[in-house]
Amino acid sequence: MSENKSAEMYQVWQQDKDHYIHPWTDFSTFKETGSIVVEDSDNVHITDGDGNQYLDGIGGLWCVNIGYAREEMAQAIAEQIMKVPYYSCFGHHTTVPAAKLAAKIAELAPGNLNHVFYGCGGSVANDTAVRIIHFYFNQLGKKSKKKIISRIDGYHGSTYMAMSITGVKFDHIGFDIDEQLVHHISCPNPYRRPESQSIEDFCDEKVQELENKILELGPDNVAAFFAEPIMGAGGVIVPPKGYHKRTLDVCRKYGVLYVSDEVVTAFGRLGHMFASKDEFDIVPDIITCAKGLTSGYLPLGATILSDDIYEVISKPQAEGALFTHGFTYSGHPVSCAAGLKNIEIMERENLCGHVQEIGSYFEEQLKTLMDLPIVGDVRGKKFMVCVENVANKESKELIDPEAQVGNRIADHCQKRGLIVRPLAHMNILSPPLTLSKDNVDFLVSTLRESIVETMKDLKQDGYL
Amino acid sequence: MSENKSAEMYQVWQQDKDHYIHPWTDFSTFKETGSIVVEDSDNVHITDGDGNQYLDGIGGLWCVNIGYAREEMAQAIAEQIMKVPYYSCFGHHTTVPAAKLAAKIAELAPGNLNHVFYGCGGSVANDTAVRIIHFYFNQLGKKSKKKIISRIDGYHGSTYMAMSITGVKFDHIGFDIDEQLVHHISCPNPYRRPESQSIEDFCDEKVQELENKILELGPDNVAAFFAEPIMGAGGVIVPPKGYHKRTLDVCRKYGVLYVSDEVVTAFGRLGHMFASKDEFDIVPDIITCAKGLTSGYLPLGATILSDDIYEVISKPQAEGALFTHGFTYSGHPVSCAAGLKNIEIMERENLCGHVQEIGSYFEEQLKTLMDLPIVGDVRGKKFMVCVENVANKESKELIDPEAQVGNRIADHCQKRGLIVRPLAHMNILSPPLTLSKDNVDFLVSTLRESIVETMKDLKQDGYL
Repeated sequence: MSENKSAEMYQVWQQDKDHYIHPWTDFSTFKETGSIVVEDSDNVHITDGDGNQYLDGIGGLWCVNIGYAREEMAQAIAEQIMKVPYYSCFGHHTTVPAAKLAAKIAELAPGNLNHVFYGCGGSVANDTAVRIIHFYFNQLGKKSKKKIISRIDGYHGSTYMAMSITGVKFDHIGFDIDEQLVHHISCPNPYRRPESQSIEDFCDEKVQELENKILELGPDNVAAFFAEPIMGAGGVIVPPKGYHKRTLDVCRKYGVLYVSDEVVTAFGRLGHMFASKDEFDIVPDIITCAKGLTSGYLPLGATILSDDIYEVISKPQAEGALFTHGFTYSGHPVSCAAGLKNIEIMERENLCGHVQEIGSYFEEQLKTLMDLPIVGDVRGKKFMVCVENVANKESKELIDPEAQVGNRIADHCQKRGLIVRPLAHMNILSPPLTLSKDNVDFLVSTLRESIVETMKDLKQDGYL
Repeated sequence: MSENKSAEMYQVWQQDKDHYIHPWTDFSTFKETGSIVVEDSDNVHITDGDGNQYLDGIGGLWCVNIGYAREEMAQAIAEQIMKVPYYSCFGHHTTVPAAKLAAKIAELAPGNLNHVFYGCGGSVANDTAVRIIHFYFNQLGKKSKKKIISRIDGYHGSTYMAMSITGVKFDHIGFDIDEQLVHHISCPNPYRRPESQSIEDFCDEKVQELENKILELGPDNVAAFFAEPIMGAGGVIVPPKGYHKRTLDVCRKYGVLYVSDEVVTAFGRLGHMFASKDEFDIVPDIITCAKGLTSGYLPLGATILSDDIYEVISKPQAEGALFTHGFTYSGHPVSCAAGLKNIEIMERENLCGHVQEIGSYFEEQLKTLMDLPIVGDVRGKKFMVCVENVANKESKELIDPEAQVGNRIADHCQKRGLIVRPLAHMNILSPPLTLSKDNVDFLVSTLRESIVETMKDLKQDGYL
C-alpha cells in the first residue's frame, strides 16, 4: 500500500500480514508486500484502502453476478436474521428459505434434477457428490463401484477429496491427494491439440480416452465422471462440439454417473441459469453449484440430484443406518434467503438476457486482441473468457514462465483501474453480469494497452 | 404439522419434503412426516409454523451462543454487504473484516496460535488441518509422516476426510471412509470403564493406547492426533483428569501434531473463549473452530496454526509451488464481520462470566435428575451436557435400542415447549449462552417430567 493510506488501513494491512493465512498465496512475496485492502464496492467497481477504484473484471472470483453492494440483498439478509438467523436442518426441521430455495433450484435445474443437498461452497458440493455417490452404490449393493474419473486441468475445489478430483497438476505440488480413488484423463483443450489433427479427430480421441479409462479400471469399479461444462481455473477451456454429449453417452453405457460441476457456469455466467442443458444439451445425473447461487454475497453451495439417485439413497437405507451426511450450515437460512433474493433479482432484471447480448459483444471485442503478437488464443463464452499469451503464435510456444506474463499484464491493468486474473501465462475475465457496453469497451481497451505495455517490458527484459 | 398451519407454511412444508435433502435424515419417517418449519426466533426461543414456541435447549446445533435474532448482528451484516459483500482473498487481496477478525482470533487463542486460515464450518476446518499438516511434513521432507489418529466416538465433520477422522461408527454405515490414512483408538469415556477399574488406571490405559498406536503405525508415519476437549456428538464425553495433557506429551515425544477440535467448545460454551488452555491446560499445535465464532449467524470456520507451523509452511515453499489451498469463501467479508460483532457482544456482555455462573447452576440442577430410575449419567460441563438413559443403573445396561428412548424423551419435551437433542439413548443439551436461571429451572423441570412420562410409556410398551 502507498504512503497515503489512513492509520486504520495501515493497521488492517499489518493485521492481515501478521495473522491471516490467505488462500492460494505466494508467501515469499506476501511477506514483503502484504495485501491490497478491498474497502468499498459498487455494482461493477471495487475501491481499495487508498481510494483507488477498479473495474472488477473477475467478479470477485467468478461470483458477484448481480454486482456489488445491492441494497435489497442487505435488506433481505437483515430481515432473515431478525426472523431465524440459524436453525439446524438435521433430521426433521427446516426453515422457510431453505425449503423455498430447494424448490426454486429444482424448478431451474434441467431434467429430473429435483433434489437439493446444501453446503457452503463448490468444494463441499463436489465432496458431498462423492460421498452421496458412494452411498448410492452401496445401497445398490455395488460396493466396488467407487472410483472417480476427472480431467487434467479440471478444477473441483480444495477439500482433500475435491482437490484429489481437481486435475490441475500445479495445484497438487507440495500437498497430498487420494490416488487410489481418483484417476485423471487428459484435457480436451482444442488450442493445444496437435497441429495436424482435425477438431473432430481430437474430440473422438478424448471421448475414446474416457471409455478406455473406464475399461482399464473396470466398469464395476468406476462410479462417476466429474466435468465442468467449460473448465474454469484450468484456463477457460471449451471442449470440442459434441464432447459433453458423447462423454455422457459413454458414462450411461457403463453405469457411470455424470457429475456436471457448474460452480462457475450456473446462474447466468453463460447466459443461462444452468449451462449443462441450455448450452451443451446434456442432462447430467448430478449438478454441483455455488458462487452465482448467491452472487457470492453469502457462502452457499448445492449438490443437485436426479429423481433416480434420490430414490435409491432415500429408500430403503442401509440396515440400521441413517443418511449420516451433512453440515451444521447445510441449508443455512440466511444464505438461502440470499440465494432466493439473488435469483429474484436475476429473473426480474433478465440478467441472462443481458449476458446473451452484452456477453456476445464482450466475446467479439476480446477477439480483436488476437491481432496482438503475443495473444495466441481468446476463448470462452459470454462472461467466462480467457486470453492466452504465447511467444510464438504459430508454434504456440510459451514465453519463459519466469517472465510471469499473466502477472505483468494484470499489474499493468491494475495501474489503469482494471482487475484481471493472472493464471500463469493467461489472464482470465469473469466480470459481474451487470457489465455495460461502456464497461466492456473500457475493459478491452485497457487490456489491449496493458498487453502492449507488457510486450515492451518483456522485450526490455530479454524475454521476447 | 397440524391442521391450523397457514397456506404458506403448508406450501413450505411440501416444498421441503419434495426437494430438500436434509442432513442426517431418517428418510423413512421423513417421507411420512416432513419437517417442522422453524419460522421465528428470539433470544433463547424458537417458534414453529403453527405458532408453537419452544425453549431451544440445543442452541440451533451447539452454536447460537449469543441467542437468536439480535438486531446489532443484522445491522453489522447489512452494513458490510453495502461496503464489500464479497471479495476474493486469493493471493494478495484482503478485506477489513477478514484481517481484523484474524488478529482478534490470534489474540484470543492460547499460546503462539497466531495464524488463521478460514473456511465455512467445522468440517472444512478439520479437512484443512489435514491438508496443511501434509503440506507441513512435505515441506520438512518427512514425506511418510501422514497418518492421522483419532478416537472412537470423536466427531470431526462430514467432508470425506473429516468423516474419516470422525470415529462415531454409526455415522460410517453405508458410506465410505479413508481407512489407509486414518486410525482410531478407543474412547476415554469414564462412565463405560470396567467396574473394577480406577479412574486413574483407566486414564493410564487410554494414554498408553495412543502411544502404542503411534508405535504400531511407526512414528515416522504418524502426522497428527485429533481430539475434541469434550467429545460432542459422540455423547458429551469428558475425559479423565490429566488425559489431554498426557496425550499431548505423548504427541510431543514422537513429533506428532496435536489438533484440538474446538468446533463446539470454543467461544463460550464452557465459559472460556477457548477451552484447550483455560479448561484443560494444554496449548495444542492447531485449534479448529466454527459454530460459536459467529454464533451460527453466518457460516464461518477457522483453522488456527502455531507460529512454528506457520514458519514451516510459509518459507521456503516446495519448489515451484504456491500454497495451493483455499476456498472461494475463505475469509468471506460478511461472515467475518458477523464474527467480529459476535465476539464484541460476547465480550461486552461478559457471556463467558455468565456461563461460569449459570452454567454451574445448570450442571448442578441437571445432576438432580440422577434420582430418576433410568438416568444413568449426567455429564458434561457448563452449557455442554448430556443425560444418558439406561435400563439398569448398576449394570449400565441399555434399554432396547428399538425403544428409541432419546427420541421419546425429546418428543415429550417438545410437546411441553422444550427442544432437546436425541442421540440414541441419550439427550444432549447445548443452549444459547444467554440462558437465564429461570430458563434453567423450566428446562430441568420439563426434562424431568418428560423422562417420567417416557418411563410410563416404556413400561406400557414392555421395554422396562
